[in-house]
Amino acid sequence: MEYETPLFFHVMRYAVRADRDVVDMVSGNPDWEPPEALRDGLREYADFDPDRFQYPPSEGLRGLREAIAARRGVDAEQVVITNGAGEANYLAMARALEDDRGQEILLTDPVYPYYPGKTSMLDGSQSFVAADETGQLDPADVREAASEQTAAIVVNSPNNPTGAVYPDTTIAELVAIAEANDALLISDEVYDHYDLSGQFASALGVESDNRIVTNAFSKSMAITGFRVGYAIFPPALVANAKSRHMLVNVAGSRPAQYAVLQALRETGPEYYRRNRDLLADRVETFTDALDEAGAAYTTPQGAFYVLARFDGYPGTLENVERLIDEAGVAGMPGEAFGDSRRDWIRFALVTPRVEEAADRLASYFS
Amino acid sequence: MEYETPLFFHVMRYAVRADRDVVDMVSGNPDWEPPEALRDGLREYADFDPDRFQYPPSEGLRGLREAIAARRGVDAEQVVITNGAGEANYLAMARALEDDRGQEILLTDPVYPYYPGKTSMLDGSQSFVAADETGQLDPADVREAASEQTAAIVVNSPNNPTGAVYPDTTIAELVAIAEANDALLISDEVYDHYDLSGQFASALGVESDNRIVTNAFSKSMAITGFRVGYAIFPPALVANAKSRHMLVNVAGSRPAQYAVLQALRETGPEYYRRNRDLLADRVETFTDALDEAGAAYTTPQGAFYVLARFDGYPGTLENVERLIDEAGVAGMPGEAFGDSRRDWIRFALVTPRVEEAADRLASYFS
Repeated sequence: MEYETPLFFHVMRYAVRADRDVVDMVSGNPDWEPPEALRDGLREYADFDPDRFQYPPSEGLRGLREAIAARRGVDAEQVVITNGAGEANYLAMARALEDDRGQEILLTDPVYPYYPGKTSMLDGSQSFVAADETGQLDPADVREAASEQTAAIVVNSPNNPTGAVYPDTTIAELVAIAEANDALLISDEVYDHYDLSGQFASALGVESDNRIVTNAFSKSMAITGFRVGYAIFPPALVANAKSRHMLVNVAGSRPAQYAVLQALRETGPEYYRRNRDLLADRVETFTDALDEAGAAYTTPQGAFYVLARFDGYPGTLENVERLIDEAGVAGMPGEAFGDSRRDWIRFALVTPRVEEAADRLASYFS
Repeated sequence: MEYETPLFFHVMRYAVRADRDVVDMVSGNPDWEPPEALRDGLREYADFDPDRFQYPPSEGLRGLREAIAARRGVDAEQVVITNGAGEANYLAMARALEDDRGQEILLTDPVYPYYPGKTSMLDGSQSFVAADETGQLDPADVREAASEQTAAIVVNSPNNPTGAVYPDTTIAELVAIAEANDALLISDEVYDHYDLSGQFASALGVESDNRIVTNAFSKSMAITGFRVGYAIFPPALVANAKSRHMLVNVAGSRPAQYAVLQALRETGPEYYRRNRDLLADRVETFTDALDEAGAAYTTPQGAFYVLARFDGYPGTLENVERLIDEAGVAGMPGEAFGDSRRDWIRFALVTPRVEEAADRLASYFS
């Protein structure tokens, strides 16, 4: 079996080993504080009796599943707590491929590179539907690409890497296309708390037995290392997904689940709003500098990323490494996200040094 | 795809819902204290800066991989930190099936039920080699069963459910059989700290490019809920295993890995010896009562379990449920572990109420 390891780790290692100071804008790790209640949750957990150090229920702590179900308006039985959104997407894609729906996974271009990696690992085939320059997806294009071979359509809004937020009409049409082709819409909503447009629409807003929603606390609580995510399955599909989860991982890590549950209970909207505002400020700072550098770019409607294109400087791995060495700014090569963004470089705005990076880029390119 | 969810959770739920007090001897959750340094590790972690709440390296915290590598005499590059032994075995079995080695997984009977579950999920076929009455495996039987179709031989010593500990000669022969058939020996050694016989032999003691060793801290540190395990791959096989780990889980949970690393550094042999001694005492108490009840049983050389057979009371799910209702003791049906133990019931000795359970069984059956 052939499957590619995403490029992230390669580029991060290159940046760390560089001979100079480098602003890391590669990975999507939030640089802000997790909720205080999360830290408290870990401290409490450390004092628990030994029985609470043992296996949680395979599908996740009941309280956590119920809290998620209540917030998302679904039945707790539909919720599987996963090892981050990574496992949630893996379970969802495996679930789509294991029935008689077809062997094709329909992805977008640009694409989050883990999706094609998972598809290959699961022996699925893949096709890509191009997003437009702003990152929006035209449902008519998806409808044309979908067929009875299609097992799943995987989308991500707010989008990594484009920053696009799909309107509710797009989401509704994607669900309808999945239904028309006996396929599943897999809607990865891990950046839902970072919607800067006010337009975010969850696929849960469309009643259907053909959509799976995946999410995680990794970004919303600034804890990518805790690995607590979830998938919400239609009732008829959840049992096999739970079996696969059990056979792969047995269960998720309990101290992390407990801390997240405490944080979910205790953390008010102010925490999320503060981080969203911080991100919005950084978008402004960074895109101002890109204007100064004469670069083309997408202004994100959500998520953590800006795609930029510099004249005569396509976003190859070689150019990204040169930018690390010569400008001291590390981004991700656009080619990692598919053919359509070969000329672009993705910058993650999750560093307090966004302004410094912006200045470096402006002076390097102008 | 069809794969069965192991029966454990069903039986545990039945026991919890029973109308009477029940001693739970179903699951392999240690009931003793985790190392104090593990609790301290969690407390320290709770105060870390936000950057240490983000993704650990996909293959695991470097310090943890190095500590394991040093203890096991391997290169840290060969070590992948996994979400418990469950993921380690999944990665190992998937690795065996993805090259051109064949599609058959050779298992033992009795068998730990997750292995056949994983095999089916991975689209492998399975064959079983019968262990003898004491749980020992005759390498000649394995040699006869193995063929060019064999991708992997999966063994577990100290064994769940038989308690057998394979001598070094068996392990060496199993490695040789794997080599002769271009297969991999997957040696699950998760109970290595609970060897009561002094005969335990790790497959790492046999140099070979055809063996994968899996393990976890779940049992040794009494933290089945933390999900920190590892697999040690031959150098040529590790890269693809790391890719699969990344594509399924991205990484393991960092607070759990950090706490385990602290515990590994700070915990001396006395901790492990104390728990092993406790287990040995319980084996004696429990088998004495089985003598009184006139039952046949295997005296474990290691691990947590005793298999017992009561005259006229075969180990079906129905009889196990009856034993819960009528005697107040919950075990696992022998049929969950394969055909050869249909008449037996497995009791896990990881409860402080072993003596009470033993009394109940003695009075119920005598």
